[in-house]
Amino acid sequence: MFYIVGERINTSRESVNQAVSERNASYIQQDVQKQQEAGAGYIDVNAGARIGHEMEDMQWLLEIIQQVAAVPLCIDSPDPEVLEMAYGMVKDPPMINSISLEQNRFDIMIPFLKGKNCKIVALCMDDSGMPTCTQDIIDRAKKLVRELEGIGINRDCIFVDPLMQPISTSTSNGAIVLDAVRGITRELSGVHTICGLSNVSYGLPSRKIINRTFLSVMMAAGLDGAICDPLDRDLMATFKTAEMLLGNDDFCAGYLKAFRAGEI
Amino acid sequence: MFYIVGERINTSRESVNQAVSERNASYIQQDVQKQQEAGAGYIDVNAGARIGHEMEDMQWLLEIIQQVAAVPLCIDSPDPEVLEMAYGMVKDPPMINSISLEQNRFDIMIPFLKGKNCKIVALCMDDSGMPTCTQDIIDRAKKLVRELEGIGINRDCIFVDPLMQPISTSTSNGAIVLDAVRGITRELSGVHTICGLSNVSYGLPSRKIINRTFLSVMMAAGLDGAICDPLDRDLMATFKTAEMLLGNDDFCAGYLKAFRAGEI
Repeated sequence: MFYIVGERINTSRESVNQAVSERNASYIQQDVQKQQEAGAGYIDVNAGARIGHEMEDMQWLLEIIQQVAAVPLCIDSPDPEVLEMAYGMVKDPPMINSISLEQNRFDIMIPFLKGKNCKIVALCMDDSGMPTCTQDIIDRAKKLVRELEGIGINRDCIFVDPLMQPISTSTSNGAIVLDAVRGITRELSGVHTICGLSNVSYGLPSRKIINRTFLSVMMAAGLDGAICDPLDRDLMATFKTAEMLLGNDDFCAGYLKAFRAGEI
Repeated sequence: MFYIVGERINTSRESVNQAVSERNASYIQQDVQKQQEAGAGYIDVNAGARIGHEMEDMQWLLEIIQQVAAVPLCIDSPDPEVLEMAYGMVKDPPMINSISLEQNRFDIMIPFLKGKNCKIVALCMDDSGMPTCTQDIIDRAKKLVRELEGIGINRDCIFVDPLMQPISTSTSNGAIVLDAVRGITRELSGVHTICGLSNVSYGLPSRKIINRTFLSVMMAAGLDGAICDPLDRDLMATFKTAEMLLGNDDFCAGYLKAFRAGEI
């Protein structure tokens, strides 16, 4: 099973920021409904952009989103107090976005996560910054998994994000991350991998074809989660086609259904 | 380096068949020029459809194509006499399409290929039919490579085609071939892999998205050759994007050039 985490409810997006500041519930709710109709398995909720308002904005978002959401939420915040409040509000076990190896984030997230019933996005970031080679990513993934298992988190709940850096800054960034996903899939059996898709294309034109082609090659390497925009029609068409080609669509039923719905 | 073999000059295509029967050189030449401008590294030439005319049609095609071709040709015939004639006519070392393990083809191709300066498409087909699992493909690939090396052919000249069967006939066909390409890449170091792209989508709607998504996932698995239509704009855009993401496009120069040319 592949996890599509819909990324649109994020106050760093101008339209969402405006809707949140105006408490325009229907705008948010319609967006959530569209994302889940398009195939999102989780809805990411990030209220970090309005400085000083994150707690109340997150609370309001969770209230109104849960009036319409048919899928669980991905609570996206660096603040454990916001996460604690949000965790107490959500009806279904959420995905928590995120923990990393940066000491100040790690030290507050480990006690927070202990005993929680949730899935966790684990970023391969530490205090030295972004990883620089495949082995670096795999080593960080192993450390994150070891620490999370140490507080009782099941491997099946861990989604390692290898952190794709823009291909425009180094042509080897893609190969490094692809090899890392293969390595994590092989060496950390049972652990999931997840990746945001938009960073790869930063600084280049025609970003959408880069994002969707990156999704398909990452899926071929073993990726089983993506944080992305499910309303990007071509992205989802590529996703469904790749699922079929990789053997995850019995009788091509998902592909044919999407075709008949005009989505492919 | 990835090898794009342009597949369009094939008399099984109606427009080409008509042009060949009318000896319409400019039609063929324009098509060849378009294919090489679009990125074909080889131009496949197949004159098999007009029964009883293959020898003369191939001869005419090679004459007129070589007046305009800037890239080498891929001579595509099951008939060693046609291949012998064609091999004698081509200016640059060609690709020869193809040998297989079917006894009647194998027995005539091995003596034909001995001592030839060419690249060879080696199909994983034998008298029992198409391969049915990953190990079957890899075993056939090993046998083909062993036999070809036995007559002095360099590994770098061998392009193994694992033979993709339609995904509509079995949802596991894609995974089988992807694993086979990974296995051949790993276990037969130095040997190339090549694949026709259109068979995968047989029997399904919106075939082009299947073909191009298949290309990208196969490239992620290690494929380094495709027999395809380089005039399929979206296919080539996906190809160039995948090349960049897989680390084969320094400074994203090929991607950016294609973007500026309106190809992406």
